[in-house]
Amino acid sequence: MGTLEALSPGAVVLVGGGPGDAGLMTVAGRAAVEQADVLLVDHLAPAGALEWAAPGAEIVDVSKMPRGPFTPQERINELLITHARAGRRVVRLKGGDGFVFGRGMEEVIACTEAGVPVRVVPGVSSAIAVPALAGVPVTHRGLVQGFSVISGHVPPGHPQSSLDYAALAASGTTLVVLMGVANLAAITEALLVHGMDATTPAAVVARGGHPDQEVVQAPLRDIARAAGAVRPPAVTVIGEVARWASEAFEEEA
Amino acid sequence: MGTLEALSPGAVVLVGGGPGDAGLMTVAGRAAVEQADVLLVDHLAPAGALEWAAPGAEIVDVSKMPRGPFTPQERINELLITHARAGRRVVRLKGGDGFVFGRGMEEVIACTEAGVPVRVVPGVSSAIAVPALAGVPVTHRGLVQGFSVISGHVPPGHPQSSLDYAALAASGTTLVVLMGVANLAAITEALLVHGMDATTPAAVVARGGHPDQEVVQAPLRDIARAAGAVRPPAVTVIGEVARWASEAFEEEA
Repeated sequence: MGTLEALSPGAVVLVGGGPGDAGLMTVAGRAAVEQADVLLVDHLAPAGALEWAAPGAEIVDVSKMPRGPFTPQERINELLITHARAGRRVVRLKGGDGFVFGRGMEEVIACTEAGVPVRVVPGVSSAIAVPALAGVPVTHRGLVQGFSVISGHVPPGHPQSSLDYAALAASGTTLVVLMGVANLAAITEALLVHGMDATTPAAVVARGGHPDQEVVQAPLRDIARAAGAVRPPAVTVIGEVARWASEAFEEEA
Repeated sequence: MGTLEALSPGAVVLVGGGPGDAGLMTVAGRAAVEQADVLLVDHLAPAGALEWAAPGAEIVDVSKMPRGPFTPQERINELLITHARAGRRVVRLKGGDGFVFGRGMEEVIACTEAGVPVRVVPGVSSAIAVPALAGVPVTHRGLVQGFSVISGHVPPGHPQSSLDYAALAASGTTLVVLMGVANLAAITEALLVHGMDATTPAAVVARGGHPDQEVVQAPLRDIARAAGAVRPPAVTVIGEVARWASEAFEEEA
């Protein structure tokens, strides 16, 4: 079960790259990058980690950017399988953790169905780490005993949404929204309609862990307007813990 | 903001050590351990990571084990401050992520109030990584758009519980329970009473990522009984994604 075992030719390793700072890659993830013959890389994967790749390694950009370069998931699956079948050591490097809205399981299933060995190296999830880098703990003793992480990619009430916002508003957990900048007004409105206190602290942390990290803090009723100009990717935290949000966490201490 | 900056004498770094496999420490966490003059270590922190400590470094066990050695939080805070004030480079090494039921923010606040500089290196959370190491993605496109992580330390209905189990049962998210083995029967009962489907797949993953990892899989109505003999620590996952739970994820692929 060790995550540090050597890469095998003809096999795929899915590496969660963390929120963007190369220091938040795992030791096992770094070792995999160093051994890879080919790396298939997302646009949210930590760019600094690519410096660890071997000199001869091939780096393939398989970004799925909104309104930018777009590689369909089927094409990514096909590339993983083709490179593995060619006997190469394949690393699939993603941002955050590959199983948190990362479509990692789709790639595991595609490889498995093709008979290609695949293993997963979990990563530091942006859902937890990005708030932390802005001073916000998703749980805190005596304050909150859980947190819920949701995708804001689809707005509340959309036929493709399987989330119950009334329940999310009532759960008693910190709410963390990923990919929610575009739909933030609709999401906060749904929470308010379902009875969440309008004064609940909220914060949007954009480009967490990067030199241009940006933090916007406001009560729930105002956060969508306050964060209107924020450039994604961003993580939104809603709950009492968001009161600790701070632009420059480390320097304040 | 870089997580890889050098440790300063007289300062504290809180390092999330991941679920237990040293390969799941972060690169920045490893660098901090290597530079530490003193390490204050939890019993769930990865033992293998201590091999990275410098030869002269002092390692202090500050476990809070149920029915075992117990270091009160106030004593841990005091040790952090005392060692920092003595001009040492202090690393606080925890299991998982320090802000996921890790009391990390209490230590940040204690240091800050004492005027001791403190920074946080997020870790791989067991809430996401332990299911992944058993083949379970907490989200999956087309199946589930979010996950909720709760502490099972306090049972449903307990005066100290601030969670709404009716809402958790209805939220549409994968439910992940940490520290829930002792209260698993009460937790599953609360979810069933509040209308969660009794046939919802569930899995308990004990000692995830360790050589003695153990996985128990059963429908929600049976999981507490099926996992009755499991030895903590364990992570419980409830939701359609738990159908992928597998004892030996890597070898099956």
